[in-house]
Amino acid sequence: MCIGDELVSGKVVDENARWAAARLWPMGLDVKAMITVGDDPPAIKSALKQALDSADFVLVSGGLGATEDDITAQVAADVFALPLAESRRMVKNLRYFFQSMGKTPPEGIDRLTWLPQGAEVLSRASAGFKLTAPQGKPVYFMPGVPREMHHITEHHVIPQLVEQFQPDQIRKSGELLIFGLDELEVQKRLKGIAGELGIPSLNLGYYPRFPEVAVIFSLSGKQNQKADQDLAAVLKAAYRRLDGHVVAKGGQTLAQTTAHALADHNLTLALAESCTGGLIGHSLTEVAGSSSFFMRGYIVYSNQAKEELLGVSSQTLAEHGAVSHETAREMALGAASRAGTDLGLSVTGIAGPGGGSPEKPVGTVYFGLCHQEKVMTKGYLFSGSREQVKLQAAHTALDWLRRFTEDHAFLYSH
Amino acid sequence: MCIGDELVSGKVVDENARWAAARLWPMGLDVKAMITVGDDPPAIKSALKQALDSADFVLVSGGLGATEDDITAQVAADVFALPLAESRRMVKNLRYFFQSMGKTPPEGIDRLTWLPQGAEVLSRASAGFKLTAPQGKPVYFMPGVPREMHHITEHHVIPQLVEQFQPDQIRKSGELLIFGLDELEVQKRLKGIAGELGIPSLNLGYYPRFPEVAVIFSLSGKQNQKADQDLAAVLKAAYRRLDGHVVAKGGQTLAQTTAHALADHNLTLALAESCTGGLIGHSLTEVAGSSSFFMRGYIVYSNQAKEELLGVSSQTLAEHGAVSHETAREMALGAASRAGTDLGLSVTGIAGPGGGSPEKPVGTVYFGLCHQEKVMTKGYLFSGSREQVKLQAAHTALDWLRRFTEDHAFLYSH
Repeated sequence: MCIGDELVSGKVVDENARWAAARLWPMGLDVKAMITVGDDPPAIKSALKQALDSADFVLVSGGLGATEDDITAQVAADVFALPLAESRRMVKNLRYFFQSMGKTPPEGIDRLTWLPQGAEVLSRASAGFKLTAPQGKPVYFMPGVPREMHHITEHHVIPQLVEQFQPDQIRKSGELLIFGLDELEVQKRLKGIAGELGIPSLNLGYYPRFPEVAVIFSLSGKQNQKADQDLAAVLKAAYRRLDGHVVAKGGQTLAQTTAHALADHNLTLALAESCTGGLIGHSLTEVAGSSSFFMRGYIVYSNQAKEELLGVSSQTLAEHGAVSHETAREMALGAASRAGTDLGLSVTGIAGPGGGSPEKPVGTVYFGLCHQEKVMTKGYLFSGSREQVKLQAAHTALDWLRRFTEDHAFLYSH
Repeated sequence: MCIGDELVSGKVVDENARWAAARLWPMGLDVKAMITVGDDPPAIKSALKQALDSADFVLVSGGLGATEDDITAQVAADVFALPLAESRRMVKNLRYFFQSMGKTPPEGIDRLTWLPQGAEVLSRASAGFKLTAPQGKPVYFMPGVPREMHHITEHHVIPQLVEQFQPDQIRKSGELLIFGLDELEVQKRLKGIAGELGIPSLNLGYYPRFPEVAVIFSLSGKQNQKADQDLAAVLKAAYRRLDGHVVAKGGQTLAQTTAHALADHNLTLALAESCTGGLIGHSLTEVAGSSSFFMRGYIVYSNQAKEELLGVSSQTLAEHGAVSHETAREMALGAASRAGTDLGLSVTGIAGPGGGSPEKPVGTVYFGLCHQEKVMTKGYLFSGSREQVKLQAAHTALDWLRRFTEDHAFLYSH
């Protein structure tokens, strides 16, 4: 249950319910329903009663702050037919909290210390409490601030629920990120994998994460070790079937895979970006330690910049255009030679919405990758918006680097 | 109501409910509760019955595809005690749809044509239908695919609801994006604005959108024109109180504001990015038409690149370090003079997590902005993760450009 007027008016996206469900599921704890209501006592009461009718446990987030809007404690007291009472534990927690921050408690903060009588305070660091309904059903009331809600769920709610309900199913899941195959092709390649491996509980979920597709493999079992082995076998088989298209695993990004691979192989890099405008440099420098391999980037939006900064010849630009094999080749070579790096990578294309022509429509992008003066170039035609063309171009460039680090033949056979 | 196992297991974020609430609210149509359940007939039935008990209308999304999982039509028939019957309208729609795509209908697609008897098919292009519950309460069943759900809601559901319920309140809302003031300071500055303007229905919502804060101003009235005038007065007063910190409005981004301002003022730009790694160039080139003012960018991650590409002197680097007023100054001047642009903007700092020192901790970032050989430089100390430091640095740089376009004195008075 999530509580807040800002949620039911659509002004704010709630992420707490999805986050909690994703954390409960692997523990064998199923979410039956998620409900969001406004700061409206009758609606909160009715939702809470219905939840207790059909569920074994309830998590509530929101409505626990110190302002007038925050009425969850009162509503909880009403539903459980308990008086509000000052919680000595909460008074102590608040005093400690403000002392440790070196601040004086703000006015109105006392509201936080009045809880339904007998409520169990969950953590020292935030306003969260637990009540127990008939039949021993626990109800956890937590602040809506994601950081606090996550902390309480992770450290208090989940351990208590596992101890109370002792779910007998162990669930495991693993994620692979796939680039360069569309969702239907990924599905086709992974078809029948559960049967081949003899793991009937295996479930595959496909989640587009543009321009990639994430596949989440989930399975369950009674034994932890067996479940781990099964998951490892599944991921291995999936890698084989997806043949080089797995670009990251375990929630990592393509940029992370690529950055780590370049650092591990001691390969230095210079970028020459035109239509991506800095996106490749930005993506690689999101990864800590990127300064060990990423030396410099040239964002060469104008033709003049391509000539002056990278030595692309004016004849090449005039004869073949800025968006061509030849320009991509000279950009990659110029970047690597001027920077003195092992690798030079170039991207030049038409992101749109303007600038297209019948011969080179919007979405046309050429790439160049050079290593020790050997260069490969290739042209692609991407579809979608300006943002989507830039994103597909940047991911293609990162994927070229990833493939090169795995096997230099990627470049030398082209 | 949103239906899907992928939603209650937390594997996929549902955006339909929030989207619908945000679209219904301005029409005077309030969302009382949002509920998400799995592909579980008893749970769907129970949620639907409860929704009909407390609401005047219900929107359902998901569970309308052609696979075995998709059981909403059957459940709807059960709840409404209606038999399933083949819908001739839906048969016709599907035939038309596949003909227009030049495809043969896939196997199993016939399932889509069986709807609760008397269901009203909502649109020609997708599987969505309406049933009417006792007391004339409409229930709209829509596909979960956001594009289809949005289309049906916009073109069929909202017009029908407005006609049926004739909400007497007109609601208006406007958004301002604020940079450089924290949320508490924004609240302080906007306090009392409703009273000052005599608009009691005015409601302010504060939404952190790192590193900015968005404020949504909402008000209601009986008359469209009066409500528009009130909203305009509110936004004008807010601009004044926020004194230069409003960086975008109406859902735009800071990068859009800045790009449009540079283009409008015919000012050309060269960037010299160190710790932002290309993020500023990427942000500006997300805006169509950025090639008219953005000529080139230098991503100078290494000291060697700073010297070779921008002419930063080795003495400056040795005496003051790469993260200093002096280096920022030489980077900005070097970028503009070598590119021949009106403006040169530089960023050099320590994004972390490594690289900090007691004198220059992680988060230290220096900026330089030059115009016709006049330069201003300034150092900031940002907190947060590597990604957050990069983001704050990029937004500070964009904000400098925005402020300069509004008033050149921003630079010349420093």
